Amino acid sequence: MSAGHTLGEIAARFGLGLHGDATIAIRGVATLSRAGTGDLSFLANRLYRRQLPTTAAAAVVLTEADRESAPCPALVSRNPYADFARIAALFEPPVPIAAGIHPSAVIDPSADIAADASIGALVVVGPRSRIEAGAVIGPGSVIGEDCAVGAGSTLVARVTLVRRVVLGRRVLVHPGAVLGADGFGLAFDQGHWLKVPQLGGVRIGDDCEIGANTTIDRGALEDTVLEDDVRLDNQIQIGHGVHVGAHTAMAGCVAVAGSTRIGRNCLIGGAVGIVGHLEICDRVTITAMSLVTHSIRQPGEYSSGLPAETSASWRRNAARFRQLDTLARRIKTLAQEPDHHD
Amino acid sequence: MSAGHTLGEIAARFGLGLHGDATIAIRGVATLSRAGTGDLSFLANRLYRRQLPTTAAAAVVLTEADRESAPCPALVSRNPYADFARIAALFEPPVPIAAGIHPSAVIDPSADIAADASIGALVVVGPRSRIEAGAVIGPGSVIGEDCAVGAGSTLVARVTLVRRVVLGRRVLVHPGAVLGADGFGLAFDQGHWLKVPQLGGVRIGDDCEIGANTTIDRGALEDTVLEDDVRLDNQIQIGHGVHVGAHTAMAGCVAVAGSTRIGRNCLIGGAVGIVGHLEICDRVTITAMSLVTHSIRQPGEYSSGLPAETSASWRRNAARFRQLDTLARRIKTLAQEPDHHD
Amino acid sequence: MSAGHTLGEIAARFGLGLHGDATIAIRGVATLSRAGTGDLSFLANRLYRRQLPTTAAAAVVLTEADRESAPCPALVSRNPYADFARIAALFEPPVPIAAGIHPSAVIDPSADIAADASIGALVVVGPRSRIEAGAVIGPGSVIGEDCAVGAGSTLVARVTLVRRVVLGRRVLVHPGAVLGADGFGLAFDQGHWLKVPQLGGVRIGDDCEIGANTTIDRGALEDTVLEDDVRLDNQIQIGHGVHVGAHTAMAGCVAVAGSTRIGRNCLIGGAVGIVGHLEICDRVTITAMSLVTHSIRQPGEYSSGLPAETSASWRRNAARFRQLDTLARRIKTLAQEPDHHD
Repeated sequence: MSAGHTLGEIAARFGLGLHGDATIAIRGVATLSRAGTGDLSFLANRLYRRQLPTTAAAAVVLTEADRESAPCPALVSRNPYADFARIAALFEPPVPIAAGIHPSAVIDPSADIAADASIGALVVVGPRSRIEAGAVIGPGSVIGEDCAVGAGSTLVARVTLVRRVVLGRRVLVHPGAVLGADGFGLAFDQGHWLKVPQLGGVRIGDDCEIGANTTIDRGALEDTVLEDDVRLDNQIQIGHGVHVGAHTAMAGCVAVAGSTRIGRNCLIGGAVGIVGHLEICDRVTITAMSLVTHSIRQPGEYSSGLPAETSASWRRNAARFRQLDTLARRIKTLAQEPDHHD
Repeated sequence: MSAGHTLGEIAARFGLGLHGDATIAIRGVATLSRAGTGDLSFLANRLYRRQLPTTAAAAVVLTEADRESAPCPALVSRNPYADFARIAALFEPPVPIAAGIHPSAVIDPSADIAADASIGALVVVGPRSRIEAGAVIGPGSVIGEDCAVGAGSTLVARVTLVRRVVLGRRVLVHPGAVLGADGFGLAFDQGHWLKVPQLGGVRIGDDCEIGANTTIDRGALEDTVLEDDVRLDNQIQIGHGVHVGAHTAMAGCVAVAGSTRIGRNCLIGGAVGIVGHLEICDRVTITAMSLVTHSIRQPGEYSSGLPAETSASWRRNAARFRQLDTLARRIKTLAQEPDHHD
Repeated sequence: MSAGHTLGEIAARFGLGLHGDATIAIRGVATLSRAGTGDLSFLANRLYRRQLPTTAAAAVVLTEADRESAPCPALVSRNPYADFARIAALFEPPVPIAAGIHPSAVIDPSADIAADASIGALVVVGPRSRIEAGAVIGPGSVIGEDCAVGAGSTLVARVTLVRRVVLGRRVLVHPGAVLGADGFGLAFDQGHWLKVPQLGGVRIGDDCEIGANTTIDRGALEDTVLEDDVRLDNQIQIGHGVHVGAHTAMAGCVAVAGSTRIGRNCLIGGAVGIVGHLEICDRVTITAMSLVTHSIRQPGEYSSGLPAETSASWRRNAARFRQLDTLARRIKTLAQEPDHHD
């Protein structure tokens, strides 16, 4: 596919407004600052707008509002980032996938594997698990008992589905992810921890993406659920019994404790922590490294991550934080009893 | 076991007070809100008390204090969560485990494997490592040199024990966990980092549980130690030379830096960070996302995670945080020198 | 090597000043508090200075300034930690490495593997990947397409290089690390997420170390880059397109979002979060659990992690935090308009 396309072909294929020479050849994609001859670039983040006038790109995907500033042919889009994503896929090197079961894979006789699925090298598929049409189980993955991988889904490599994990269609799971491990359920009794059986499973909707080394635990009594089109970055921890609504996206290193319910179309920033047994409604954005300790019932943006400053300044302010209640009381005294000190 | 039990059988087996019809059949377990015919439920968290009067459960495990509110037969317990855990285990589907060594496993000739241990598909066991009676090494696990897995312990799947890792009895390790990797020891010398050899090992006591993708590094000179019955959730990082006392539990994503010593019966909330070289005494609780920078010498509860509020409000407050020392000085001036502005 | 060395041999080998009996035998290394007969110890962290006078070590590596306090022979060094690291390596048990390809490994015919490289049990090497002289690919590792592992590098075990990952020489990667997974690039379009192709790769310089379960994503358009001698601890997340300068070290659980550029010789504390699209200059230190939301253009130390206090006190102060802007306005009123309440 990377042999190249003319700008006119690309405009027609994706329904974009073309301004400039339709015959120029596009041979690749690049950022505004790095693009050169034959490269298509894009402008979608205003942080990079200052790079537009001097780009050496052959053409740029941008909004009508930015078109005048382009020093080169332009493809006008209402959503330049999305259209750029579609175009860039033309230049993605194909990954070799062979249908069939690699001879080194170890497949339980009761597993049910579609004829055109691809089971990679050194994969294990356990009892009663089902791999549907066109699914790809990458090398080194381990699938335990009673799992299902829906049609067209891909486990890239070294993914683990422990037990009772059901993936929808076109789900993409990155290496090191562990789905369906025991939830963290413990009862303290007579001086020792007693393990609470985790009888639920994990259900992942269609079109979800799950990042590298992300973990999603099995529910204790009810399933842990991701609805359709949920997108999780790397190293996210989803506790048992959590429910995540459709189209919600989470950046890396988010931790969601057990039984919390997150709505649809939420955006959870990196390294956010959400405690257990909460409800977060639809269309909530939470900024990076915030801690959510109460349910959120109004759409909107929420924060609690303090930004770094110089340590010298920080130490002075943090010391005062420990006096904050005392300081507040003193202000109250000063304000309400102005003659107290007279 | 899931064929069902009468309520009377269950009460007798676990020594619980039975109120109601002993002959009703229990066929499964469920939450108060989801339970239906044949389901046993429980009430242990007061968050769910309001669901009790309307539950459709066949019976409920609860304390004497809640018994009057149950609309169905009850099993009275002093610790309903623990007794529910024991009962739920009756309904856990068995996981197939075959004793013996799977033909695809790669075992070093000097490894010592008990006759009734189970070594799964595509497992590697290295030189001088010992797998004791009844231990289960799940598929895709890699055990390096000089390790030991105690009797009745289970590595679920794709666990790595790198080197000099000794697990006690009945230890449960979830997929993706890495025990015994090099501690992060570096000396800066002549403009480059020099690696400090990590000569210690990891010692895990009996009845510990270690979550998915958790990492526990080998000590530099002394072993990293978890005493008996320590329970670690997923994605926890335990630095080299850390010592964790018996019965301490940590929620997901905790990070403990090197050489810190944590006491017994501590509860560490999710995503807590604990810096290195500290001592934390017994019976300390730390709430979610707190940062511990000093030793803690008194039992009790500690916190530093700020709760999220609306970003609009947060931004105003966070901006003031950077002025906090200045504000505090101004208050002091106002309070002590009231006539300063007169 | 662990047969022992005389103190004089060690002093001569590493160019250290010897004070005391050169003929004593050193058979191992240990901390000041644990060292006994035949053990060499060191003093490099002032936290442990009080242990020096009572150590039972056979000898101690320390600075000239501490020599007088040693109760035993001493090796005087300008950098005791670095010299101790060099000496300790003499006592490190060798790890067995066999050159050649283990018969259970699955190697693509187009892969290029040096004759003296070691490919461990149950390893997968994909199309067009290259393993250079003396490199060690530990058991259970998966290397995808178009990767390269430089001369003398080691993947300890169960490492994944997904695609277009190039490692320099003498790189050390710990188990569970995933390099080259798709960056987290998504465009929201017509109510659904659209995946943005990740066409870049990952480039790791010489002498880097990458911790267990750390993830480093492939760039969208440009490579994700670690320059030479970058040292990453466990469970770090490096987003797509991040660039990390030489000799920078990061402690465990750091998260760096996409396209951020970090300078040389930086020290990033544990669990720090750094948002995307920032620039951090050379020689910046960031203390544990800080959140970096703006570019840093001056070398120095930065912080924002609040230290834990008792929860009772914390709750009072955190409640006041939400009033901070209001309190600050009140102070301003009090200070600037002192007669307002009169």
